[in-house]
Amino acid sequence: MPFTDLLQAVRDGTLSVEEAARQLPDPAAGDLAYATVDLQRQARCGFPEVVLAEGKTAEWVEGVVRKLAAHGQDCFATRVSDSQAAHLATAFPAASQDRLARTFWMTVATDRVTPVGMVQIVTAGTGDLPVAQEALVTARVMGANAEMIVDVGVAGIHRILRHRDTLNAADVVLVVAGMDGALPSVVGGLVDCPVIAVPTSIGYGAAFGGVAALLTMLNSCSAGVAVVNIDAGFKAGYVAARMVRRMHRA
Amino acid sequence: MPFTDLLQAVRDGTLSVEEAARQLPDPAAGDLAYATVDLQRQARCGFPEVVLAEGKTAEWVEGVVRKLAAHGQDCFATRVSDSQAAHLATAFPAASQDRLARTFWMTVATDRVTPVGMVQIVTAGTGDLPVAQEALVTARVMGANAEMIVDVGVAGIHRILRHRDTLNAADVVLVVAGMDGALPSVVGGLVDCPVIAVPTSIGYGAAFGGVAALLTMLNSCSAGVAVVNIDAGFKAGYVAARMVRRMHRA
Amino acid sequence: MPFTDLLQAVRDGTLSVEEAARQLPDPAAGDLAYATVDLQRQARCGFPEVVLAEGKTAEWVEGVVRKLAAHGQDCFATRVSDSQAAHLATAFPAASQDRLARTFWMTVATDRVTPVGMVQIVTAGTGDLPVAQEALVTARVMGANAEMIVDVGVAGIHRILRHRDTLNAADVVLVVAGMDGALPSVVGGLVDCPVIAVPTSIGYGAAFGGVAALLTMLNSCSAGVAVVNIDAGFKAGYVAARMVRRMHRA
Amino acid sequence: MPFTDLLQAVRDGTLSVEEAARQLPDPAAGDLAYATVDLQRQARCGFPEVVLAEGKTAEWVEGVVRKLAAHGQDCFATRVSDSQAAHLATAFPAASQDRLARTFWMTVATDRVTPVGMVQIVTAGTGDLPVAQEALVTARVMGANAEMIVDVGVAGIHRILRHRDTLNAADVVLVVAGMDGALPSVVGGLVDCPVIAVPTSIGYGAAFGGVAALLTMLNSCSAGVAVVNIDAGFKAGYVAARMVRRMHRA
Amino acid sequence: MPFTDLLQAVRDGTLSVEEAARQLPDPAAGDLAYATVDLQRQARCGFPEVVLAEGKTAEWVEGVVRKLAAHGQDCFATRVSDSQAAHLATAFPAASQDRLARTFWMTVATDRVTPVGMVQIVTAGTGDLPVAQEALVTARVMGANAEMIVDVGVAGIHRILRHRDTLNAADVVLVVAGMDGALPSVVGGLVDCPVIAVPTSIGYGAAFGGVAALLTMLNSCSAGVAVVNIDAGFKAGYVAARMVRRMHRA
Amino acid sequence: MPFTDLLQAVRDGTLSVEEAARQLPDPAAGDLAYATVDLQRQARCGFPEVVLAEGKTAEWVEGVVRKLAAHGQDCFATRVSDSQAAHLATAFPAASQDRLARTFWMTVATDRVTPVGMVQIVTAGTGDLPVAQEALVTARVMGANAEMIVDVGVAGIHRILRHRDTLNAADVVLVVAGMDGALPSVVGGLVDCPVIAVPTSIGYGAAFGGVAALLTMLNSCSAGVAVVNIDAGFKAGYVAARMVRRMHRA
Amino acid sequence: MPFTDLLQAVRDGTLSVEEAARQLPDPAAGDLAYATVDLQRQARCGFPEVVLAEGKTAEWVEGVVRKLAAHGQDCFATRVSDSQAAHLATAFPAASQDRLARTFWMTVATDRVTPVGMVQIVTAGTGDLPVAQEALVTARVMGANAEMIVDVGVAGIHRILRHRDTLNAADVVLVVAGMDGALPSVVGGLVDCPVIAVPTSIGYGAAFGGVAALLTMLNSCSAGVAVVNIDAGFKAGYVAARMVRRMHRA
Amino acid sequence: MPFTDLLQAVRDGTLSVEEAARQLPDPAAGDLAYATVDLQRQARCGFPEVVLAEGKTAEWVEGVVRKLAAHGQDCFATRVSDSQAAHLATAFPAASQDRLARTFWMTVATDRVTPVGMVQIVTAGTGDLPVAQEALVTARVMGANAEMIVDVGVAGIHRILRHRDTLNAADVVLVVAGMDGALPSVVGGLVDCPVIAVPTSIGYGAAFGGVAALLTMLNSCSAGVAVVNIDAGFKAGYVAARMVRRMHRA
Repeated sequence: MPFTDLLQAVRDGTLSVEEAARQLPDPAAGDLAYATVDLQRQARCGFPEVVLAEGKTAEWVEGVVRKLAAHGQDCFATRVSDSQAAHLATAFPAASQDRLARTFWMTVATDRVTPVGMVQIVTAGTGDLPVAQEALVTARVMGANAEMIVDVGVAGIHRILRHRDTLNAADVVLVVAGMDGALPSVVGGLVDCPVIAVPTSIGYGAAFGGVAALLTMLNSCSAGVAVVNIDAGFKAGYVAARMVRRMHRA
Repeated sequence: MPFTDLLQAVRDGTLSVEEAARQLPDPAAGDLAYATVDLQRQARCGFPEVVLAEGKTAEWVEGVVRKLAAHGQDCFATRVSDSQAAHLATAFPAASQDRLARTFWMTVATDRVTPVGMVQIVTAGTGDLPVAQEALVTARVMGANAEMIVDVGVAGIHRILRHRDTLNAADVVLVVAGMDGALPSVVGGLVDCPVIAVPTSIGYGAAFGGVAALLTMLNSCSAGVAVVNIDAGFKAGYVAARMVRRMHRA
Repeated sequence: MPFTDLLQAVRDGTLSVEEAARQLPDPAAGDLAYATVDLQRQARCGFPEVVLAEGKTAEWVEGVVRKLAAHGQDCFATRVSDSQAAHLATAFPAASQDRLARTFWMTVATDRVTPVGMVQIVTAGTGDLPVAQEALVTARVMGANAEMIVDVGVAGIHRILRHRDTLNAADVVLVVAGMDGALPSVVGGLVDCPVIAVPTSIGYGAAFGGVAALLTMLNSCSAGVAVVNIDAGFKAGYVAARMVRRMHRA
Repeated sequence: MPFTDLLQAVRDGTLSVEEAARQLPDPAAGDLAYATVDLQRQARCGFPEVVLAEGKTAEWVEGVVRKLAAHGQDCFATRVSDSQAAHLATAFPAASQDRLARTFWMTVATDRVTPVGMVQIVTAGTGDLPVAQEALVTARVMGANAEMIVDVGVAGIHRILRHRDTLNAADVVLVVAGMDGALPSVVGGLVDCPVIAVPTSIGYGAAFGGVAALLTMLNSCSAGVAVVNIDAGFKAGYVAARMVRRMHRA
Repeated sequence: MPFTDLLQAVRDGTLSVEEAARQLPDPAAGDLAYATVDLQRQARCGFPEVVLAEGKTAEWVEGVVRKLAAHGQDCFATRVSDSQAAHLATAFPAASQDRLARTFWMTVATDRVTPVGMVQIVTAGTGDLPVAQEALVTARVMGANAEMIVDVGVAGIHRILRHRDTLNAADVVLVVAGMDGALPSVVGGLVDCPVIAVPTSIGYGAAFGGVAALLTMLNSCSAGVAVVNIDAGFKAGYVAARMVRRMHRA
Repeated sequence: MPFTDLLQAVRDGTLSVEEAARQLPDPAAGDLAYATVDLQRQARCGFPEVVLAEGKTAEWVEGVVRKLAAHGQDCFATRVSDSQAAHLATAFPAASQDRLARTFWMTVATDRVTPVGMVQIVTAGTGDLPVAQEALVTARVMGANAEMIVDVGVAGIHRILRHRDTLNAADVVLVVAGMDGALPSVVGGLVDCPVIAVPTSIGYGAAFGGVAALLTMLNSCSAGVAVVNIDAGFKAGYVAARMVRRMHRA
Repeated sequence: MPFTDLLQAVRDGTLSVEEAARQLPDPAAGDLAYATVDLQRQARCGFPEVVLAEGKTAEWVEGVVRKLAAHGQDCFATRVSDSQAAHLATAFPAASQDRLARTFWMTVATDRVTPVGMVQIVTAGTGDLPVAQEALVTARVMGANAEMIVDVGVAGIHRILRHRDTLNAADVVLVVAGMDGALPSVVGGLVDCPVIAVPTSIGYGAAFGGVAALLTMLNSCSAGVAVVNIDAGFKAGYVAARMVRRMHRA
Repeated sequence: MPFTDLLQAVRDGTLSVEEAARQLPDPAAGDLAYATVDLQRQARCGFPEVVLAEGKTAEWVEGVVRKLAAHGQDCFATRVSDSQAAHLATAFPAASQDRLARTFWMTVATDRVTPVGMVQIVTAGTGDLPVAQEALVTARVMGANAEMIVDVGVAGIHRILRHRDTLNAADVVLVVAGMDGALPSVVGGLVDCPVIAVPTSIGYGAAFGGVAALLTMLNSCSAGVAVVNIDAGFKAGYVAARMVRRMHRA
């Protein structure tokens, strides 16, 4: 760990106190005019800083990607708009993009990890697909195996029941649902692994852009259900991958 | 219909115009200092005016009951508090009260209707019982058969599935649930009769006193689900009885 | 019922246990890459699965329609956008579409049911017409007779009062209203059949996109009023048709 | 007007500039350690400052009453709790209190105004009585005639219709309603005078302490309806009296 | 009144009972396929039905205007969009439109009323002008004199104070304000006539589209303030004109 | 698995079809008049059904405990009020209760599991202790090791930083915080294991009973943070234990 | 002060009372048809009235600028849209505009103040830049020195910690953050100067357009944090400049 | 600064790296079973950690006070309930308590600072006094002079105007108001120093426990107004004292 190394170097007399104080933050943050890239994120959290493209100009996104690449780190970006996607495709032709998931993924690091475990993603409806896909891509990018079961909402309860074995074989189950958000409560009662519920903004009227589904999930009568933000497929995939990697580390 | 009779009487010259204008409202409203009892409710809607005891003094409730009785009408009161119940028990010892449902029921009319059909009431949890009981008593008082299945929430999905036949035999199903309010969506997909969902204020935190369950139910992915107010067991029983009586009228 | 048949076949030795476990769900769900069509919905709920077009690509909607048709089931879709409508018109020229109601309806099954009963739909204003029309088309598609009275809001109370006889002749009354949502409370006090209130997003300012009307209806001082989601003409028509078909089954 | 007189006195040389600057505010505000009594309110607005007792100690209320009386002004207080009422009854035995309205009223000024006009107050239910009574007392204290019609909610629409003539004879109509708050929309369409709607906190569940009724009234389909705060009987009576006094001033 | 006449005719034998029942509603409602025009509104409320153009097709608006005109009634429409305005300008070239207020006004009746009294309209900011202009046009169309003082918000308190005399000369004051909505509280303490507060959607962030201003006004520390819906310039002008006409009727 | 065994028995002819249909649900649900105890929960989810004591009478809680015990299952109850605790202490003197956590825990099963892994619980303030203790007890009861670090909120950022090593040694970190709910965002950026955030109702004013903290956590700028309901210490402990048991199963 | 001068003139007989009453407001307000420009703002508050361009036509903004300039006052406008910016660039080519901050700044007064103190602005993310820039420009225009540190959110806590000395050297720190809004709580615990928190609408789902960040900041566990409206960079810069100028006045 | 000293000691070889890592946090946090007292708060922020008594047992509050005292630091506690106050009065008889402000204050440090500057506190009503008093005590405890003007709300605008000179003489003005929260907007336009607005929960109905006043203040049309949480007199006093001490430091 850099901090301990630094202290050791000071201890050895190879580094002055003043110099140590100045050096400390340098490797940890890449300064741009519009961003302070967290270059230590991978060391601390196991994965480089991820770029939320929404609310940034395409040039700002490009700049952060270049900064990460310059430090040998992979770059993952989410909520990439159509125009940002076009800009990035030109700037980084080798990177891969998923337009359903709205993600950008560019690998720089040379050592590839073998994916581990299984994140099983389930959607209540067809309209929940983009959010689920964002979770799927995220989980895979972060080193977990991930698969998806689509459109098995509770109005036809047999649709989810026939996947009971598949669900029980997973390390963690993500349940993506809008409207009434009822599916995670059913799934949470069928399995013994952690369940992450992802409310989506699918629905109309009193769905209130996903608030109804969010509240349903927070109040799930199944105890083993944790929740992420509305439409936060990325977060769900990220948390799930953290779990799976813990479960399968040597 | 009184109005037509009145016109006819005027037509026949047995009633002056002025007198007609004055008589018109008389039989329809019983005036008290604190209430205008709707004496025509039974004729228009098939059941006498029901008293919401909450927010009234015990004396006011007593007065309305006496006014209805004086006009030969039965009286049903809901949300009767403990102190109101004690007052009414003294005033009307022959009336029946259900303290779980918090209801008061006094019959005056001599012709008893034979109960018809079947209102099947289902609760997600044990805490939903008081609201469900209010629905049960209401439906029965209004002339419908009614039964209850308790504590079959979706966290143990087999609990509701084993009652599938009973549900399908009902004319209408009331589903009473707090917390995530997910049960009506499952039930709505199992039956072909109307489903009335009743959100309850059971739950904590982001349950927001029943708002979470209410929103879930309004956004049910099962199309055949209508909703009533939070904790409105009375309304659910009332609507259900209206349906059942329509279905079974000669 | 398939499940009992399956058990019987296993009992008879004509079906192995493993095969039975595998076959169970098959006829019940049509798997597509983006949807799991509920092919048992008609058997369970009396009507095939209905497609909510909103939030889906036109191709996804088309695919689900084809899947239903391939299994000999009729297909009803709601909230069809202009561009989806154009796509579907090309793909299924024989199907009927209603652009005011934004619905799509394609019949495949050969046995037509004779419409029964009467769903009377009432709107408070002219702006509520699209939602009311969605309810009207839905009720008719599901086998109920349905008619509409337009723009009889409570600001001119005589407008609804003169339709009293028509209302009382109905099996169920749907009241569609935005803004103050006051009409269902008046109608609920005029009739003895069930009333379904449909709040609409018509209004401005503190109408909050239909929330004001929704709350009014949930708190209706008329007991016989149940409620559906904001702008949920489809749900109202669906619930109403379920009621009417129960009332008029042989 | 004092300000003009002051300028004139300065102009006449009977008052120095410094003295004028110092005197200006003096007669307008009575300073207490815990209150700055607005002694000019009667001159500006036609009625002395009114004391909102809620949130004040009984001693503070007493102090303000004494300050007003010391300047020859009448004192009206609202939302007086039981314990405050007992304290004030001892301190000011000659004052009159109305426990249903929770008001305190002490006259000091010797010239009594003859009440004018007619404020007609209407309640939807019996539970709305305390708020309506507060409006009634306020209007009368401020010099208007006022009467009340109780419990004529829209679930029995004939109850309000039979009072049509009384309503049309009023100068202004106050409509007090909780739950669905629908009554003002009907009344607003029956009369040609101003209507003030007063939402009450009567109701349960999604009534949200009067919010549902408030929203209904703000969105009234009857154009001639203005609204005051939830349970604000005082404000409604105050605004109504202002109107009536304008209408009937010589 | 028609009802009494009808009764008299029946009494005289000049009208059969059946015929009376049928005739009753006829003159009161003009039926269109998409609207039930309230032709009695002028008789009951003193002004013809006003058309809310928002949420209607231009053809529907045109149809209602023609129906009113055919019965000799003037027509006033509000919230007229640009495209509706263009359509109406072609259809009714003689009508007058105000594009700042977004109103349409066509006179048919031949007897013009002389405007009476004075509605003084005050805005807190420049951005509140369109709503204030809608109130101004409405008040004038309904027969009241009306004037406006613009942009005198409380951040520069002297701006409103210098208009004190003008305010006190008015019969009713309308205060139009967005953002903090504080101006009505100040104005309410300066005058002794009724004050109607109109919240506008001007502001950003926690202004929540006018909710902040609405709440401020409902909680005004000045008792003489009633409130209308957000951006409801029309309602404010309508209520004000009702007041003024009452104050100045012979 | 019972279902497969059942099918096999039917296949073998040792069980009739009718008998199979009847037996299926029996072992899965313990029927009481007021509850349907889910006796299969342990088999499906790895832990018996947990009793939410809130909203139940003490007798109902006692009954469910007895039913579970009669089937050889342990019983865990949460949100036990003081009076319920006293009742249960008499009924089940051998059970253990934690009054800070408000939990009840009675073991019946004879085979004790050895606790595994480490759930590290962190609180932002002292007032968050009861919720954190509920999480701690829950995690331990479910077979996980658990420890707590108290009162290390971000206003003194060094307090959490000095526990960095402890945090990184955990399998999962629960962060319990009220008021601004900011701590999980900091912790999420320090570790590479999953973080579960638990908002509490500690705070006042715009804390809105935990809503502020809940929203903060849902919007955490640290991607690895999932959330549970306000004050849901039980849920957090339950989800964490599920994770830990997955990570450490043989 | 003008008021005292006026009194003196009246006292001296050089000014009549009537004339004094008329003159009083004149120099204080510049009347336009659509605006009442507060010409005394600079005298009272130390800075001329600032124009909120949002919700105004470009012509109205131009008119107010001209009015201020005609009275020798500088003009600052915020929330200038692209089309307004183009219009103003033509009308006032010498003025400076910042399109990231969306500000307009035109100096007329000849005496320039030397900037004082230091307002340190900090953003949590890159997307918060436009709001921060608005604060920066505002603070500078009002005579304070201002600098910015970008993208140092709490997910990488070392990023803000390495700026500790810079923060402590400031007179006031503005912290601009969206999403979880957690940064001000950390900064507030690191410094002993006032901290102003600015929530931004950056985020999605349950960020609710900045409400989540706003609530976080209002509930900050660091006591030294005050808050302004969502996206209110202008207000933050304005308040900060007021503070700094107080701290550094001679 | 300790950190630099530590590095120096390591550099000098007088401290091992391991020991340095362990020692770092020690002096900064006082560990109790239920609290981690921030002993560096005074050094970092200029004032010791303040105890929010609400939500803590009296014993916990006592323990934290003893810990602070043991380290020679003064202790200030807020929101002290009656029972906590009694407990603390026994435990620390020398400490001073203010029951209107609900504060506890015990001095241990021997060097008293001379109060500087002037914090002027203003309340809109009498009911706002407790919150204002909390601000007053806090400001004084933290070394600022502070005074109060009570009950000068905008309904009698002259009440605040006559204090204009006092307001302008202050370094910072705190405006405490409930109900409509309008006073800060007026004050903000009268002075050129910073204004901190404090919403209170005084009011009823749509005041929503202070939300109305909070929104008013966040949307103040006066730019120089920052806001703190509802009823947060402590925070307002704390921020104000920070400002004043900056303004008056040598």
